[in-house]
Amino acid sequence: MINVGIIGATGYAGEELIDILLEHPLVRITSISAKIDKPARIADIFPKFKNRINLVCELPDIERIGRACDLVFLALPHTISMETVPKLLKAGKKVIDLSADYRLKDTKVYEKFYLTRHKDKVNLPKAVYGLPEIYKAKIRDAKFIANPGCYPTAAILGLAPLVAMGIADSSSIIIDAKSGVTGAGRKVAEGFLFSEVNEDFKAYKINVHQHSPEIDQELSKLGGKKLAVTFVPHLLPLNRGILETIYVKKAKKKAQGLAGLYKKFYKDEPFVRIKEDGLFPRIKDVVNTNYCDIGIKEEADQMVIISAIDNLLKGASGQAVQNMNIMQKLPEETGLV
Amino acid sequence: MINVGIIGATGYAGEELIDILLEHPLVRITSISAKIDKPARIADIFPKFKNRINLVCELPDIERIGRACDLVFLALPHTISMETVPKLLKAGKKVIDLSADYRLKDTKVYEKFYLTRHKDKVNLPKAVYGLPEIYKAKIRDAKFIANPGCYPTAAILGLAPLVAMGIADSSSIIIDAKSGVTGAGRKVAEGFLFSEVNEDFKAYKINVHQHSPEIDQELSKLGGKKLAVTFVPHLLPLNRGILETIYVKKAKKKAQGLAGLYKKFYKDEPFVRIKEDGLFPRIKDVVNTNYCDIGIKEEADQMVIISAIDNLLKGASGQAVQNMNIMQKLPEETGLV
Amino acid sequence: MINVGIIGATGYAGEELIDILLEHPLVRITSISAKIDKPARIADIFPKFKNRINLVCELPDIERIGRACDLVFLALPHTISMETVPKLLKAGKKVIDLSADYRLKDTKVYEKFYLTRHKDKVNLPKAVYGLPEIYKAKIRDAKFIANPGCYPTAAILGLAPLVAMGIADSSSIIIDAKSGVTGAGRKVAEGFLFSEVNEDFKAYKINVHQHSPEIDQELSKLGGKKLAVTFVPHLLPLNRGILETIYVKKAKKKAQGLAGLYKKFYKDEPFVRIKEDGLFPRIKDVVNTNYCDIGIKEEADQMVIISAIDNLLKGASGQAVQNMNIMQKLPEETGLV
Amino acid sequence: MINVGIIGATGYAGEELIDILLEHPLVRITSISAKIDKPARIADIFPKFKNRINLVCELPDIERIGRACDLVFLALPHTISMETVPKLLKAGKKVIDLSADYRLKDTKVYEKFYLTRHKDKVNLPKAVYGLPEIYKAKIRDAKFIANPGCYPTAAILGLAPLVAMGIADSSSIIIDAKSGVTGAGRKVAEGFLFSEVNEDFKAYKINVHQHSPEIDQELSKLGGKKLAVTFVPHLLPLNRGILETIYVKKAKKKAQGLAGLYKKFYKDEPFVRIKEDGLFPRIKDVVNTNYCDIGIKEEADQMVIISAIDNLLKGASGQAVQNMNIMQKLPEETGLV
Repeated sequence: MINVGIIGATGYAGEELIDILLEHPLVRITSISAKIDKPARIADIFPKFKNRINLVCELPDIERIGRACDLVFLALPHTISMETVPKLLKAGKKVIDLSADYRLKDTKVYEKFYLTRHKDKVNLPKAVYGLPEIYKAKIRDAKFIANPGCYPTAAILGLAPLVAMGIADSSSIIIDAKSGVTGAGRKVAEGFLFSEVNEDFKAYKINVHQHSPEIDQELSKLGGKKLAVTFVPHLLPLNRGILETIYVKKAKKKAQGLAGLYKKFYKDEPFVRIKEDGLFPRIKDVVNTNYCDIGIKEEADQMVIISAIDNLLKGASGQAVQNMNIMQKLPEETGLV
Repeated sequence: MINVGIIGATGYAGEELIDILLEHPLVRITSISAKIDKPARIADIFPKFKNRINLVCELPDIERIGRACDLVFLALPHTISMETVPKLLKAGKKVIDLSADYRLKDTKVYEKFYLTRHKDKVNLPKAVYGLPEIYKAKIRDAKFIANPGCYPTAAILGLAPLVAMGIADSSSIIIDAKSGVTGAGRKVAEGFLFSEVNEDFKAYKINVHQHSPEIDQELSKLGGKKLAVTFVPHLLPLNRGILETIYVKKAKKKAQGLAGLYKKFYKDEPFVRIKEDGLFPRIKDVVNTNYCDIGIKEEADQMVIISAIDNLLKGASGQAVQNMNIMQKLPEETGLV
Repeated sequence: MINVGIIGATGYAGEELIDILLEHPLVRITSISAKIDKPARIADIFPKFKNRINLVCELPDIERIGRACDLVFLALPHTISMETVPKLLKAGKKVIDLSADYRLKDTKVYEKFYLTRHKDKVNLPKAVYGLPEIYKAKIRDAKFIANPGCYPTAAILGLAPLVAMGIADSSSIIIDAKSGVTGAGRKVAEGFLFSEVNEDFKAYKINVHQHSPEIDQELSKLGGKKLAVTFVPHLLPLNRGILETIYVKKAKKKAQGLAGLYKKFYKDEPFVRIKEDGLFPRIKDVVNTNYCDIGIKEEADQMVIISAIDNLLKGASGQAVQNMNIMQKLPEETGLV
Repeated sequence: MINVGIIGATGYAGEELIDILLEHPLVRITSISAKIDKPARIADIFPKFKNRINLVCELPDIERIGRACDLVFLALPHTISMETVPKLLKAGKKVIDLSADYRLKDTKVYEKFYLTRHKDKVNLPKAVYGLPEIYKAKIRDAKFIANPGCYPTAAILGLAPLVAMGIADSSSIIIDAKSGVTGAGRKVAEGFLFSEVNEDFKAYKINVHQHSPEIDQELSKLGGKKLAVTFVPHLLPLNRGILETIYVKKAKKKAQGLAGLYKKFYKDEPFVRIKEDGLFPRIKDVVNTNYCDIGIKEEADQMVIISAIDNLLKGASGQAVQNMNIMQKLPEETGLV
């Protein structure tokens, strides 16, 4: 049994982690904490957990968490994460950080997009970018994981084969991304009120979204040269799910049989499903699962790739548990659907 | 042309008032104000009004509003209204108050349910309860209207014929009410976030909702004796609309042909539509209209009445304009659908 | 390992059964069938099952199903079920029937509400009504289960303690029920189109719904005398979940501490959760779980009970698996959340 | 007063036409027909029209329609329209056809995308493509209008200035389009059931949608050379509204101040609103209006244009009434918001 702690348990990602880990056969949740006014049973905060868990959610006390846990999930807002990570690493704990604080290797880029100074440059190089389909070997030996963003997960998985094999014209990549509302977290702001979002649809942060440099960083690594995508996110009136429609021109005009190439690229990856020709993903098929579904439409010189995930699972907490499984040498799928 | 002002223009009811009044053939909006940080064009606050209105929304300045307007709509939160009404009445303006501040004639009841002291007992008796189907003659001569609550409008219209004619066993009235989310106003609170309300449904304020005494007051008047209903409101995951399912036992067992009785009771009312036997209202049929649709199911000793309105129209701003039309001796339907 | 078959796998209940049983640690799905034009992999019919199950969905062939399975779930429309059940029972298979065909003990009532002749009066008395919280001992020894309807599950669990203990005035029971759209099954009819249901809400089959006699039958048994409820179902614009608001007058005025009574009544039932005083269920807390959440509001002589379930889980497939677990002497919660 | 008829009154576009025309100050609806089993009051078919219109909806009888109307709206499925149009034109009636039958000038393209033979090549050249912002002069003198498709309206208005002025690299146009469900009409198919569409999102008919050649035809005309766009439509879980995110590379790198260019291009068009720099359209702002809102983001060599309309208004019935107003020499906005 692995003893795990969750810091930041009251956001959507934290809530989802509890939900997954309660059914994980080899995990015992031993500590739950969050920024709360006063300690409360997590089952009183989220009545859906009643009869399933008895723990009290408290303010995070790193020392007590250290004593109770082998591995700690951080589902904290960025900035807060980098204040907590150093203490946990120092205490010898394994850490999976769901925030953005350790994803971007270039602190200048981080500081530009997150509008705050990076406070933990010491541990930044130690963080392994936790996208198992690309970095599985490193994750296996890692003590500290920077869990990827939701949009980047769908984008990178959708583009990795094309970029890695040099099939994509890397100057032409357009990602038209659509996300359900939990992607914004449990943020109490007028723009996320039911009556504002329901029956509406809009783009936001056009080409200036903070997930944009994360996608650029990883695709540049995969392709071996610097690239920058056009990234336009949109807000969907639904709870969970991301679907990205990706447009790329071909670098090599002769490339064909893309579905076959994708299947080969992901042949050992249990959570990536490539659609047969003419079939495409929909959000419904991946919601409440850790799968990333990918479909490809190939035209003369243009490719359209569609990639779908559940933003709270493969895009956050599911992927975090997948990373934990790999770190603990368990079968990758343990406790995940 | 009537020159009208709207105070509290940035809430849902205020926004809806602008929408209606812009298409009203005999109205000119001459003042728009609200509690805002700094003056801004209303078309910048609500881009949907672009090209339709050029006014700037400012902090309310009663003197200027008085100079600009013949009649003023108050779409303010309760408590705030009773600070504003006295000044407008003193300036000789006609006032239609959409808040709850002047609806309850008994200030003790008001103070119990709204948890605040009533500050304008002088003007309270002057307020006419603006339910045109019951108080049309008084509204015609009124200078000051207390516009009814959304739940009470549907409830009172649904029950008035039964209670007025003594058909209802007044001790048995149960109102199971369901409202769309705009009913709560543009309140920025976790409970009204999209991801909290969407795909959810729940009851709230069971038998302690502030609209409950308003229903009791009006039905007691209609029936000529004090009664108290059981009132359970629920939150529907949709933007607009109220549907109330009302259960009443019969006082006189012989009553029959209720649809006929209802039609007769409302024969001169353009905005009440009684369903034929076996047909029942649905929210879709009244949304974006000022209608109240009512259907009746009669069993041996039990009656089920279903009443539906658009909470922002017949339940708020549409009814306010209907009241204005009556006060101005215009055809009641002018500018309304 | 139990070898199970699912007949009627392409409806919502069948799809849900597959989803649950694939994660059940002691079950192997060995046969999947449905009324389909030609055999197809179930993962092609429901792409969400890709990588999780390889079976082909075929037309039901009772002989082959008999050879492959120890226990068969029937997720068929009523009428069709009673043509299939006799063959499976004759073949010695355990059967859990999710249709309404064997729930009503009085075939006259069945024939009135389902508008069809009952064709299997031989097996009708053998069917155990599969509500584990009431009939657990019988279910343990049963070979054939009539799995309860979704509305009746929430209603009976919400009322059982009151009726069984004689606290309810049995002539006064009103059930105002609201269900998500999957409750209607995958029925292709104009009334269930997205643009018809979305942003709408309505009552239907007022006091004539086919689940009404099922509730009456079970509550009459529990109370030891014939009773008939007032039952008004409504259609909610959401996918999953039922919430019923139940109004009952007290038979004994002195009854009090109802939450305590309910907790005692259900003390050994893992899937019933009684809310503390002042707290009430919401659909969100039970969706994707097998729980029934119940909250109680007690007034002088009136009680309001609110009961919530996921219509596809505790209201159908989850309850079916719970029944299977009990029949197989497994812990009741195995494979269920 | 103009006497108008509506053929095909029971679909979403027909229903919407009734809604608009009932409030149009210079129109009298004199005939309503549709493919129905037996004549019925339109207010019985759509209870929302009760008290507002008394007409009976019958099977279309061209002779009677001709006698009753000066102008006829056809809200029929394609194929059916081209059987009806010749008779109405022969009878000397003005016709506004909302179907696709007369939009594509090349019948080969029509036949390829609509999978049916074109049966009225005689009248095809007489049809004026009813996009007032481009063809107003022709519409003024027209007797017969082919009302544009919903996707093409948003796409062409969003791209016209760029294409007409040669700013767009016409080989690079990508249209990522998202539409609410009424865009599919009142089609009773499993794919449009509430539980299938709600909480889902997907692309469909990728690069093979029938609106694609309509966009190509009109943009080619505007640009003076043949072009073909990449067009990927998606289905949004909401009732009304289209938002298209359009990606174009610049032909001339020096182009700048695009918002200014757009405003100039549309300076006389009451229903096109260009957003200020940094602001973008959302569906909510155009729903229930005839506006097309357009926002532009300009990067070094790439432009992102976002265009939003209500698919049933500017994308269908609103635009049809706008065309009628122009044909009748009325102010273009009469009866429209």
